[in-house]
Parts: sequence; structure tokens; C-alpha cells
Amino acid sequence: MINASVAGVVQEAGRHPDQIEEIYGGLNGILGILNEDLIDIQDEKQSTIEGLKHTPAAALGTCRYKIDFKKKPEKAAQDMNRLFEVFQAHNIRYFFYAGGNDSQDTAHKIHEQAVQRGYEMRVIGVPKTIDNDLPHTDHCPGFGSVAKYNATTVMEVADDVASMATDDGSCCIIEVMGRGAGWIAASAVLARRLPNDAPHLILLPEIPFNEEAFLARVKETVAQLKYCVVVVGEGLKKHDGTEFSADARKLDSFGHPVLSGAAEQLADLVTEKLKTKTRTIKLGYAQRCAAHYASATDAEEAAACGVAAVKAAIDGQSGLMVKIVRTQNDPYQWTTGLQPLGDIANVEHLIPRDWLNEDGFMPNEKFIEYCRPLIEGEVKVPTEGGLPKYVTLEKVRVEKKLPARV
Amino acid sequence: MINASVAGVVQEAGRHPDQIEEIYGGLNGILGILNEDLIDIQDEKQSTIEGLKHTPAAALGTCRYKIDFKKKPEKAAQDMNRLFEVFQAHNIRYFFYAGGNDSQDTAHKIHEQAVQRGYEMRVIGVPKTIDNDLPHTDHCPGFGSVAKYNATTVMEVADDVASMATDDGSCCIIEVMGRGAGWIAASAVLARRLPNDAPHLILLPEIPFNEEAFLARVKETVAQLKYCVVVVGEGLKKHDGTEFSADARKLDSFGHPVLSGAAEQLADLVTEKLKTKTRTIKLGYAQRCAAHYASATDAEEAAACGVAAVKAAIDGQSGLMVKIVRTQNDPYQWTTGLQPLGDIANVEHLIPRDWLNEDGFMPNEKFIEYCRPLIEGEVKVPTEGGLPKYVTLEKVRVEKKLPARV
Repeated sequence: MINASVAGVVQEAGRHPDQIEEIYGGLNGILGILNEDLIDIQDEKQSTIEGLKHTPAAALGTCRYKIDFKKKPEKAAQDMNRLFEVFQAHNIRYFFYAGGNDSQDTAHKIHEQAVQRGYEMRVIGVPKTIDNDLPHTDHCPGFGSVAKYNATTVMEVADDVASMATDDGSCCIIEVMGRGAGWIAASAVLARRLPNDAPHLILLPEIPFNEEAFLARVKETVAQLKYCVVVVGEGLKKHDGTEFSADARKLDSFGHPVLSGAAEQLADLVTEKLKTKTRTIKLGYAQRCAAHYASATDAEEAAACGVAAVKAAIDGQSGLMVKIVRTQNDPYQWTTGLQPLGDIANVEHLIPRDWLNEDGFMPNEKFIEYCRPLIEGEVKVPTEGGLPKYVTLEKVRVEKKLPARV
Repeated sequence: MINASVAGVVQEAGRHPDQIEEIYGGLNGILGILNEDLIDIQDEKQSTIEGLKHTPAAALGTCRYKIDFKKKPEKAAQDMNRLFEVFQAHNIRYFFYAGGNDSQDTAHKIHEQAVQRGYEMRVIGVPKTIDNDLPHTDHCPGFGSVAKYNATTVMEVADDVASMATDDGSCCIIEVMGRGAGWIAASAVLARRLPNDAPHLILLPEIPFNEEAFLARVKETVAQLKYCVVVVGEGLKKHDGTEFSADARKLDSFGHPVLSGAAEQLADLVTEKLKTKTRTIKLGYAQRCAAHYASATDAEEAAACGVAAVKAAIDGQSGLMVKIVRTQNDPYQWTTGLQPLGDIANVEHLIPRDWLNEDGFMPNEKFIEYCRPLIEGEVKVPTEGGLPKYVTLEKVRVEKKLPARV
């Protein structure tokens, strides 16, 4: 949904030609500014900008680049100097940055530096993370669409597994994303319409894995229904706080261990201890970019967050992140608000314990009430030759004015 | 799509009340007949039968039960006796069976037994296998929908991976189903619109895995595009014919080894040999039942195969499988035909070598021309609360007339 937010920013910015003369996009986030890889978004067709609202992934590219004053103070200072050189060279006075915790942290640092350097610039963060783990906002754009796709997939897979169920029993384990936060895993609860519906267990990073209780519940479910569908968040943790499936060999560029294989590990456990035939599904990136079945509510909110960011900046504000504020639940109503970036960065918002059943294996009505409206409606995606028709940006480069970054 | 074929059978059967007085469904395939677990399909709502056309999995249930005269002759003879006792007890004179190779084999044996026993019954097979590996039919119902969903997913994932591409390079490996046949894996080629589009390599079970050539191509692609998307069929084989990822510990009920982990194994290889960051996706059952994005062409053909089966039987024919005959390619036109079941059973139809590029890493224009029409159109699926609304059968049981199976 980050593209929908970009569309919101671009469309709203275009409505303020007196204040905003040019609209540039940095390719691959902050790296694009550092490298002066800017594109002129005013050169894109209006239909392309509108088409971004149903196009998956990040049309401007993204990065996992951290400006880290703690670990690499010299490099960070150098990066900041370069950023402000580029801002200055192109007279960039409005800076909008969309992403999760790390991106909001970057936006916060840039805001602080602008103040410190006396460089007049308005910095507004736009929330976007499927993990849904930003504080202060009711939820994050991107989450609703993943919840919708995953719940749909769990429903469909459950039908498939149920149709094959025989007295031998079987188990199917579906691994989903979310890192340390269980929002995505928990949202699979929406697939349940009736008490015996899948998923039968959800393993959340918020609840340390209890092997004995888990196996007992799988056994009980298979005995009752002949099959059991388990959803597991990739960031499931052991009692000692280490990750159940962390692969110590692999680190991402923020230094977090790459998580993979929770489903496979659980499957081995079930096969070994219960002798129950077990299959796994690992949706991986497929869940993050399934624009062919995105939530219309999510898309609308994502675009609105982009619009709100520009309005706040035009209004003279800076150092804030747009947030979604739920004003009413039934029928669902929402608006946008603003929160200081300093309150957001590097805080991880997890599922409250009292939104889960006592045994920790299933979200309760509080969670369901929260999550249900977020998956409402389907984004209409045009097709061509039986496949979704997504847009790509022309990416007309803005002429560089500075020597290459060293 | 097996439900669409069932809907076709039931709707057409209902149009011949003079010949067909009752319409029963066997729960879990042949097991339902053996156990006399029959439901009265005339008791289902008309809207439910129509709704089957967009409902995933197998509403009547399915089984992996083989009547094996070679390995277990006594058990097989006993099973056959039981089947004909049940047929006789309920005066079943038309028998329609939908599925892949093993199911057509079962239908064939039942037809032969009926002839041998002088029991008047018309047996028609209906093709259904996502693996698309039945001979004589142009393609199999179920395949087009998997091809559509997988190609869509590959397109979306490629956008996601491309948007994250940096000079470090990355690789994403997507594992798909199909067992020994590469039709499903190959169909991901439809995601390619431009020469540099993903997938960049497709590893097919038909082409023995060549580690050196594979690594060279991944390296080359990452060097050129900064990322590489690989699709691998679960049944990829080594040069000695053994399966690349067979897990010898696990056998399915037909005695075939359970395949899992081809993507994980390849990822380990790429990480180790090329030091390229690699993520995996294993779609598993999710691809088999993704009714929320099914091919309208596939659904129409599946229902038509069911209708054709009943028409053939009413016409006095038996011992045949319905097949799809392509009469024209552009615009795509098709009709149904019939083929003796004896020609079908246990023959595995693989991708012709000359439908692949010389290096074996990509299907060529012949394959694309074949595959493209099969994913056309989207099945309209009603939604409720943001999720697809699928139907379930009432399953009113037919009164048993026989003692329980021993």
C-alpha cells in the first residue's frame, strides 16, 4: 500500500503549486537522496499516479539503509551532510517519508537535523508497515490488505485440507510474516466463521512457544476434526526470548536475524511426536504484495495518509507522523491525526495480552472487533490477458547538480 | 475446479429425470462408496450447486485411496465386491468420477468390473488435476486457475523484490506444485511481459538439475538486474532421476515420497556459493485452492466437462473420460471429446522438450501460446465481510441399506 500513499502525497502536492513547484521522488528511499537519484514525478501520467493505488510493492523502490549515529557516528554525520547538500541543491523544502519503524526513525533524524542546521524544511512521516507494529496509530496502512489476503488463503487452504481429511488425520502449518509482532498471524482469525473453522491454533511471537501445550492442542483437534490448521508468525519465540526459527547464519542489513522455517520446524515436531502427516505453506513476500486481492478500506486509508501528510506540511507543521484514528467501530469510521515522530521511532507496538484468549492460542473478540473492518471491500484491479495490470513509473531523472557521492 | 465439474454433472443429471431418478454423492470419493457414506444431492439448494462453481477444494471430500490389484490383490477384490454391493443396493447405474491419473485408474477398473460382472452401469471419468499431466486431453480443469494465480503471484513478488533491489543483489525462489510434471512451474512464464521480467529462471522436473548452469544464470541475472526470481517445481530431479528434494522419511498414501523443500535447498545453495541474499516462498496448497482469483475459462471448461460426462452416459457410453479438445488458438476455441479410460490411467503427460528453450530454463513461444488462453477471465466470487463467500453442502445422508464394511 505504500504506492497508494505516494499517490496521495503526489496528488495533494499537485494541488498546491504556489508552495510546491516540483515533485521529486527519491529512488530507493533515502539512498536515492544520498545518490541524488531523483525522478520528476510531475512528468508521470496522471493515470499512472492513479494506477499506483492498486499497484503492489514500492514503485519508487525501497531500501534498508540506516543512518546510525550510535554505531557509525562518522558515517552518519557524513550521510546527513550529503542529504542536506542534495536538499539544498534542489531546493527541497518538503520531505515526506513512508515506512515502518526504521523509516520513521530516519524521518525523525532528518527533521532534527533540519532544525539544528536552520534549514527550513517540513518533514512528515507516512505510516506503512504490514507488520502493523507502529505505536499511536490505530493501525498501519498495508496491514489490512495482508490480513485480508491471509485470512482468505487460510479459509481456502482449510477447505482443501478438510476435503482430504480421513481417519489418518493431517495437519497443515501456514507461516506468515510480521517479525516480532503477531498482528499478521493473529488476523488469520478472521477466517473463522464457525467454532470448528480453521485456523485452529495461532502461534504468536507475543506468546512464548509451549511445545507441550501446542502438541496437545494439535492432537485434540485432529482427533475431533481429522485435521488441524495452524498459523504461525515467523517471529515465534522460545521461553528464553530467542527466536524459534532464527537462522543465525543470515542477518539483514539492519542486523536483525533473517527468520525462516518456523513452519518447517513445527512440521518436523508434529510428524515426529504425533506421527501426523503435516504439510507446510510459507507465503513469504506473496502476502506482502497480493494487490490482486487488496482491502479497499486499506487502500483508501493509505492514500488519505499521503494527502494528510501534505496538508500538514502545507499548514506549516513538521516532525510529525500521520496516524489513523478510529472514531467509531460499528459502522467503522476513521480520520487521520498527527503524532510527533519522536514518539514513534523504534517503539514496537505488540498485541495487548487481553486481546488474546487465556491459553494464548487465539485472538479474542476484542482483536476481531479491531481487525474486521480493516479488510472490508476489494480494490478493483484492471486485468490484461488474465493477469492484473499494474503500472510502472516512467522515472524521468532529475538532472544531477552535485558531484557523485563519495 | 473439481466442484465446478460436480456442479456440471449434477445440473445436467437433473435434466434427465427419466433416466436418473436420484443423484448421490460419495463422501471422500471411492471411500464414500465403500463405506456407504452417500449424500442426497437433490436435497441441496439450487443456489448451493451453482455456488460450487466458485468454491475451492472438494465439497464432497476427496481421498487418496487406491484399489491396487497388483500389490494387494485380495484387498482389491474385496473392495470391488463391496463397491458393487453398494451400487446394487442403491441401484446406481451411472458413475462419474473426477480426478487425475489415480482417479481415472479407479474409474477404469470399476468400468471393467461392471462389464465383467454383467452389472449394467455407465462409467465416465471427468479430468481434474492441477498438475495437468493427463494424456489425450488438451489440458486439465484446475490447471488454468493455478497458472493464473501463480503467474499473478510471481508478478507481484517480482515487483516487491525489484523494489528492494540494491547493489548487494538478492534472489527469491518460489516453489510450486506439479509433482513430476512441470506444467505448473512452466506456467509462471506468463508473468513475463518484457525480456527482463521475472521469472528469470524456471526449474522443471522434466530437465535434470544442473547446479553449475543454474548458479551461473542466477549470478548473471543478479549482476544485470540486481535481483533474480526463480520458480522451481517441487518435483525437480537430479541427473540420476532421483528427486532433488524428496524427503525419504515421508510417503503419501500412494507410496510416493512427499516432496518438500526444493526452494529451501536451492536457497542454501545460492547463499553458500554466490553469497547472495535469498528468500523463499512455498505456496503449497494455497495455489491449489485460490478460488478468489480463479480463471473464468477454467471454471467454464470444468463445468462443461461435467455436463459432457452426463451427456455421454445418457447417450449409452461407458469406460470413457471426457477430454478438452482445442479447436482453435486465436481466438481460443474448444470443445469436449471422449477418450477410453484405458488410454488415460497411469500415463503421465509431460511438457514436450521442444516447448522449452534450448537451455531448459524457460518455456518458449509454443508453451506460451498453449497456456495463455487458459488463464483468461476472472471468476466473480461474492464476498461477505471482506472475504470470499463459498458454499458448503448440507450433506443429507442417504439411508444405509447394508451392514457396515468389514
